[in-house]
Amino acid sequence: MHEVTGWAAAAPGAAPAPWTFSRRDPRPSDVVVRITHCGVCATDLHSLAHGDPASFPLVAGHEMTGVVAAVGAEVTDLVEGDRVAVGNIIGSCGVCGPCRAGRENDCDAFPTLTYGGVDPVSGGTTQGGFSTEIVVDRGFTYRLPGALDPAEAAPLLCAGVTTWAPLRRYDVGPGTTVGVIGVGGLGHVALKFAHALGAETVALTTSAAKADAAKELGADDVVVTSEGLAGQRRRFDVLLDTTGHPMDLAPYFEALRVDGTYVLAGIPPQRLDLDPMSLVVGEKRLVGTGSAGVPATREMLDFCAEHGIVADVETVTPDGLPSALDRLSRGDVRFRFVVQMP
Amino acid sequence: MHEVTGWAAAAPGAAPAPWTFSRRDPRPSDVVVRITHCGVCATDLHSLAHGDPASFPLVAGHEMTGVVAAVGAEVTDLVEGDRVAVGNIIGSCGVCGPCRAGRENDCDAFPTLTYGGVDPVSGGTTQGGFSTEIVVDRGFTYRLPGALDPAEAAPLLCAGVTTWAPLRRYDVGPGTTVGVIGVGGLGHVALKFAHALGAETVALTTSAAKADAAKELGADDVVVTSEGLAGQRRRFDVLLDTTGHPMDLAPYFEALRVDGTYVLAGIPPQRLDLDPMSLVVGEKRLVGTGSAGVPATREMLDFCAEHGIVADVETVTPDGLPSALDRLSRGDVRFRFVVQMP
Repeated sequence: MHEVTGWAAAAPGAAPAPWTFSRRDPRPSDVVVRITHCGVCATDLHSLAHGDPASFPLVAGHEMTGVVAAVGAEVTDLVEGDRVAVGNIIGSCGVCGPCRAGRENDCDAFPTLTYGGVDPVSGGTTQGGFSTEIVVDRGFTYRLPGALDPAEAAPLLCAGVTTWAPLRRYDVGPGTTVGVIGVGGLGHVALKFAHALGAETVALTTSAAKADAAKELGADDVVVTSEGLAGQRRRFDVLLDTTGHPMDLAPYFEALRVDGTYVLAGIPPQRLDLDPMSLVVGEKRLVGTGSAGVPATREMLDFCAEHGIVADVETVTPDGLPSALDRLSRGDVRFRFVVQMP
Repeated sequence: MHEVTGWAAAAPGAAPAPWTFSRRDPRPSDVVVRITHCGVCATDLHSLAHGDPASFPLVAGHEMTGVVAAVGAEVTDLVEGDRVAVGNIIGSCGVCGPCRAGRENDCDAFPTLTYGGVDPVSGGTTQGGFSTEIVVDRGFTYRLPGALDPAEAAPLLCAGVTTWAPLRRYDVGPGTTVGVIGVGGLGHVALKFAHALGAETVALTTSAAKADAAKELGADDVVVTSEGLAGQRRRFDVLLDTTGHPMDLAPYFEALRVDGTYVLAGIPPQRLDLDPMSLVVGEKRLVGTGSAGVPATREMLDFCAEHGIVADVETVTPDGLPSALDRLSRGDVRFRFVVQMP
């Protein structure tokens, strides 16, 4: 065990503040990562405000880039100084069907979350990336491609994979029309992905002020949803909802083509309320997605390196984390805060 | 115009009673069908009780078999005396994308419903199959395979296609496990289809008393849902909900495998209420389905002829229709009423 510094909330709702805690010594299969950057995700906001009190003090953060500080004896393909990344899952059973299929995020035994999960070694609560160091199994440590800036790449590990996986699963590419609902942390990366995948890419936003930015991010067209969805009927093969806000889904289902798919990529805190006829007429589909497995994460990082895709970030120091969380709660960021570790 | 006899409800909630009304003279593309049998669907129950008052008097019924009585000049492939069938759609625009793809049920202009729709010729209300005759465009008239009994085949035209289409769309067959929720009008045919398609077929029913019947229909296993779904976690590739009853969906989503699909084949009258995490964990899918296009209907009839699949029916006279509707509302039928015309 060795001590590291994290920025932890002492209890739900408390502002993150410096906290000294222990990381395990590396097992033979572990990598010790000196964290240089960690993105700030809406999930962090939710977990720090409303997480299980038993999990506190809690260090959030699950979009990390950094540098290998040490490796266990079995790790032969990473050495000290290699640039790496860690995402929102750091373990899974490894033997169930989904794990064997590279869908570790869908592990039958539930994956180990990067923070607020149960550490399979210590049995304690896992602690996340708003800290100076993390110890992670090699299987969940990604090599960071040389082309990617570590600050700008950090958000790819959650905002990136969460939108990449469904775009791939639902065959977004040339000949398809995809609408990205929400131009925020997830949405702005999704626009870049969809454009680079060759799809007709449309941003749907409540804010006319984001139209120009959306086009710069890769949108071929922008629909300002506060003006209604008239004219959008049966336009989209896929609608990727990155908002995490509950809304009236009926007009969005109207905007899907026959067999079209509405993907919940942000998770609304409320239950969904839906007219079944929205699904029946035109045989529409409502699907969930959450994170991605190891192969999809690697594929996404390679695609980003090839296409020069990173997040648009605003960098803050750890002391600036409370202020960043507050601004994020008001949607005041273009488009992702990243904490740069000291 | 010529007069025919129907069994119409005079107003919402009224019992169907004999009523003389007019059918159009056949256009060159039309087929005049002397109806011999018409199945009684839960949709009939709903439409007769709660339909738009402006549509009444209303003749329900959209699962017809019969005999060609006359054909229009352009109809060269059917002759008087041929056995035919008519389902719940009798027209569509014919030029939109879904129509050109053989998905007439998903017509961008909405298909013409067999009853309670807008007749594209007269502009009046379409009237359905609880009548002695119907005039239908050749494109929506199906040749009834010789192997199929007209009374037992009638329900295939709605209960059949409504379950056949999603089983095919979601690739049910060897190597997949499908659960059919509800062993009623739709469910009992779905069990036969799933079994004949080679899938591991499981009936999910609230009623232990239906277990033996479900196995005779083709179920490899029966789950009595009133005893809970413990032990069913991540078992099913597809769950086909034929109940039309609102229920707590969470345990059913738990019973789906990763990427599994929950198909709403019966339409609940209430809105759906759903925890978004039911979709996110395991990346599940909730989809709607409604009827089928012409190619899928033909494919289904051919499959039924090849595999000897028909509905299990209880035949009644038109005068018995009110009593049959009443019994259907209480689930007291094994498994489909069919009205035999005089």
